[in-house]
Amino acid sequence: MSTEKCFAKGSSAPGPVPKDQIRIYSMRFCPFAHRARLVLNAKGIKHDTININLKDKPDWFLEKNPLGTVPTLETPAGEVIYESPITCEYLDEVYSENKLFPASPFGKAQQKMMLEHFSKVTPFFYKIPMGRKNGEDVSGLEAELKEKFSKLNEDLVNKKTKYFGGDSITMIDYMMWPWFERLELFQLKHCLDGTPELKKWTERMAEDPAVKASGLPVETYKTFYKSYMEGKPNYDYGL
Amino acid sequence: MSTEKCFAKGSSAPGPVPKDQIRIYSMRFCPFAHRARLVLNAKGIKHDTININLKDKPDWFLEKNPLGTVPTLETPAGEVIYESPITCEYLDEVYSENKLFPASPFGKAQQKMMLEHFSKVTPFFYKIPMGRKNGEDVSGLEAELKEKFSKLNEDLVNKKTKYFGGDSITMIDYMMWPWFERLELFQLKHCLDGTPELKKWTERMAEDPAVKASGLPVETYKTFYKSYMEGKPNYDYGL
Repeated sequence: MSTEKCFAKGSSAPGPVPKDQIRIYSMRFCPFAHRARLVLNAKGIKHDTININLKDKPDWFLEKNPLGTVPTLETPAGEVIYESPITCEYLDEVYSENKLFPASPFGKAQQKMMLEHFSKVTPFFYKIPMGRKNGEDVSGLEAELKEKFSKLNEDLVNKKTKYFGGDSITMIDYMMWPWFERLELFQLKHCLDGTPELKKWTERMAEDPAVKASGLPVETYKTFYKSYMEGKPNYDYGL
Repeated sequence: MSTEKCFAKGSSAPGPVPKDQIRIYSMRFCPFAHRARLVLNAKGIKHDTININLKDKPDWFLEKNPLGTVPTLETPAGEVIYESPITCEYLDEVYSENKLFPASPFGKAQQKMMLEHFSKVTPFFYKIPMGRKNGEDVSGLEAELKEKFSKLNEDLVNKKTKYFGGDSITMIDYMMWPWFERLELFQLKHCLDGTPELKKWTERMAEDPAVKASGLPVETYKTFYKSYMEGKPNYDYGL
């Protein structure tokens, strides 16, 4: 991970992307940027990291990516790629060693459909903490999340595999992981209690070298998240 | 296009997918299914079409695709693929003649980013007619849509190409086309008045053989749409 502090509005743009590398514009606590960092690490891709202050974005960053989102990739030729699934697939295609997507078009399509289903899971990671903060009853939302987890659990049970794409980690595992790494942060770990295979998957994932290299200690997440909820996100916390 | 009437809840499932074909589950008026039909026709892929009553879906269809959406593809081996961008990419990968996506990973990523931007255009095709129906002032929404069209126009001007991926039609053109084919239906044709290059693009697209083979006469769209707005969609209108 980069140890350089984030770039905010008014900052000078960083220098050009070094010739033999790719650059990722990231935010250390963003689960979407986390996806691309997992892929960079899993594939051993040489890269540099520029952290962005997402609350106060530099103009030069918005010129590169008008959506202003992370992850954003930039090549030495100045090609810019954004949207996490697009960046991850791009990396998997350009750096063809250690392929993370299955080779078959149907295998790849299956992972993309699964990602589409998973996109209906991630909103709960915001809705439940927000509901709690507002003193609402979140038991209904938690029940919905558990239902989604049991679908994922069932999938692993049916496939009889260690990971979602087989007995080794593939793209879909890394696409989903950032939210599972944040279960404790969002006080949602108990939602795994009824889904033992999914729980085992999280334990296996936690041991993966790319996961270890891409993540942060839970206390670091917690302190950032507290500052975020107070409206003053401390993007550089822990550096 | 299939001339067979749509399958509703209670219908018997169609027979197996013929050995040398792929099957598309479609709805004749759905712009998302339209995308996959354009790709099937553009690539000359042998297929059969099963139309689905989306208001009253057959159980056997929901078993194939739990989301119950069209387009859905099915292979003779029983493999099922859904979500329009996933189906279209799958078709482009499996049927490798007449490739619609660029060969380079960056070229492909660019088209996917463009599609992401375009996903913010399509909601206007529902919001504006709905607003009008409710007697609201839609001039603000129309101005927003025109602004999005001028971005697309600018893109063509900058690229100096006939289509969005070059001087021949590529995937991104077909992904966007279904909404432009419905401009007249939604009484939005005047929104092209300030964007001459985009207008020329729609005129060129209308001449494409796959576009001609995949579309319907505007009066047919209009009659269906009227029935749809009255809450009684006549999926078989015009057959």
